[in-house]
Amino acid sequence: MLLVKVGGGATINLPGIARDLASLDEPALVVHGANACRDELAQRLGQPTQTVTSVSGVSSVLTDQDALDILTMAYAGLVNKRFVQLCQQEGVNAVGLTGLDGGLVRGRRNAGIRVNDNGKKRIVRDHSGKPESINEELLRWLLDAGYTPLLTVPILDEDNRAVSTENDSIVALLQKTLGARRVIHLIEAPGLLEDRDDPSSVVASLRLSELEARSRTTRGRLQRKLMALATMTASGCDEIVIADGRSESPLGGALSGEGTRIRA
Amino acid sequence: MLLVKVGGGATINLPGIARDLASLDEPALVVHGANACRDELAQRLGQPTQTVTSVSGVSSVLTDQDALDILTMAYAGLVNKRFVQLCQQEGVNAVGLTGLDGGLVRGRRNAGIRVNDNGKKRIVRDHSGKPESINEELLRWLLDAGYTPLLTVPILDEDNRAVSTENDSIVALLQKTLGARRVIHLIEAPGLLEDRDDPSSVVASLRLSELEARSRTTRGRLQRKLMALATMTASGCDEIVIADGRSESPLGGALSGEGTRIRA
Repeated sequence: MLLVKVGGGATINLPGIARDLASLDEPALVVHGANACRDELAQRLGQPTQTVTSVSGVSSVLTDQDALDILTMAYAGLVNKRFVQLCQQEGVNAVGLTGLDGGLVRGRRNAGIRVNDNGKKRIVRDHSGKPESINEELLRWLLDAGYTPLLTVPILDEDNRAVSTENDSIVALLQKTLGARRVIHLIEAPGLLEDRDDPSSVVASLRLSELEARSRTTRGRLQRKLMALATMTASGCDEIVIADGRSESPLGGALSGEGTRIRA
Repeated sequence: MLLVKVGGGATINLPGIARDLASLDEPALVVHGANACRDELAQRLGQPTQTVTSVSGVSSVLTDQDALDILTMAYAGLVNKRFVQLCQQEGVNAVGLTGLDGGLVRGRRNAGIRVNDNGKKRIVRDHSGKPESINEELLRWLLDAGYTPLLTVPILDEDNRAVSTENDSIVALLQKTLGARRVIHLIEAPGLLEDRDDPSSVVASLRLSELEARSRTTRGRLQRKLMALATMTASGCDEIVIADGRSESPLGGALSGEGTRIRA
């Protein structure tokens, strides 16, 4: 089984990925984002995506109730169903699901973010959380029956309420639970870059130990991604490929040596 | 198996229906609408829901690409996932799906509506269609495994593109395909009314033959609903109940004699 994470950027080639899924010779489980669509919808609705910066300097999206509704419309509604449709057009029998459906991804709501509010520290609590368990039975049945699950946020928290989470964390948990040996991350870059401003500086391959060292020297989203990747390689994943989701054949490229390969 | 259609009006009591689903002693398959949410979202996005009137005087919602996107966000995104969440909170393991997912509902795109455009007749073609077949295997597996499928539009047309359709038509096709003996329609009224302006004029029971007679003397949405109901009673359904979706316990009420009962 191939585990594929598809980024939510505006330039990700979803039709190309749907075509690639049709020519795979193994079952695939896909987790996708939709942040560009969410941000655009939020803008149109006059409720732009807000971020907060914790006292330790980490910036995160703040998911209040309105933001959660917008996220659900963009991720579970528009992008998920567009992606399902593209797959169906290529003969891939995709089933779009969120972590809520069938209790597919359950987790815990975050305790809150400690922020500096005009010199006073306070806790901001939003509708975000961390995934902790997977409904393996439902996923395995779908995969065995020939369906291609397309998964996205939100997920369920401990009170069965919807919370947002990092898709990278869902992918890491799926890898561990299902024992996936190979994980592909399709992003809006040709791979992991030595210099983020130089697209030709793709790191062709990396060892787990190097990945951990890098995650200590980066910040923000990339740091969280690298840390999620490090978890996977530590739990039995043979290979992680980070490749260009914008290319003509994103999965094909990833499977034929393009991008960055991380090996345990 | 109980087949339940939940209307998409703003006053439908979804938390009450979720509670009722938890106390059922048989599996349930639910089809729900979201027209109030769709219309509100369309308004907020500055693209209000449009209707067209055919030369024969029938008025329908016009689903262009923008309207289809809005519909998908409201039905498959916001309302479907809110309903799943409410069910999960009551211990009902709901799985929210559209007709696109796993090719659950396939159909045919409408040829177009003949309209009178300033004295000239022309055909307006939109993204709407009629359901023709059901992926019975997927639904039966979910029901047998203890899940409660919550189904909504869009569905797939003959080119695997998303189209909108009447939820009543999906319910009629599901009833026929799965052989459901009992169907419950939860609407924003106490039942089928003798006088639409008098909520106390509920028709307590009706025979199929009377239903057909009534459908010939009504117009618009109600006529389409009555015609869909007539199809069901004609194909082996023992009882259709039309009951109040706004009450404290909508399903409970429907099962204990409230509303209108239609028997073959």
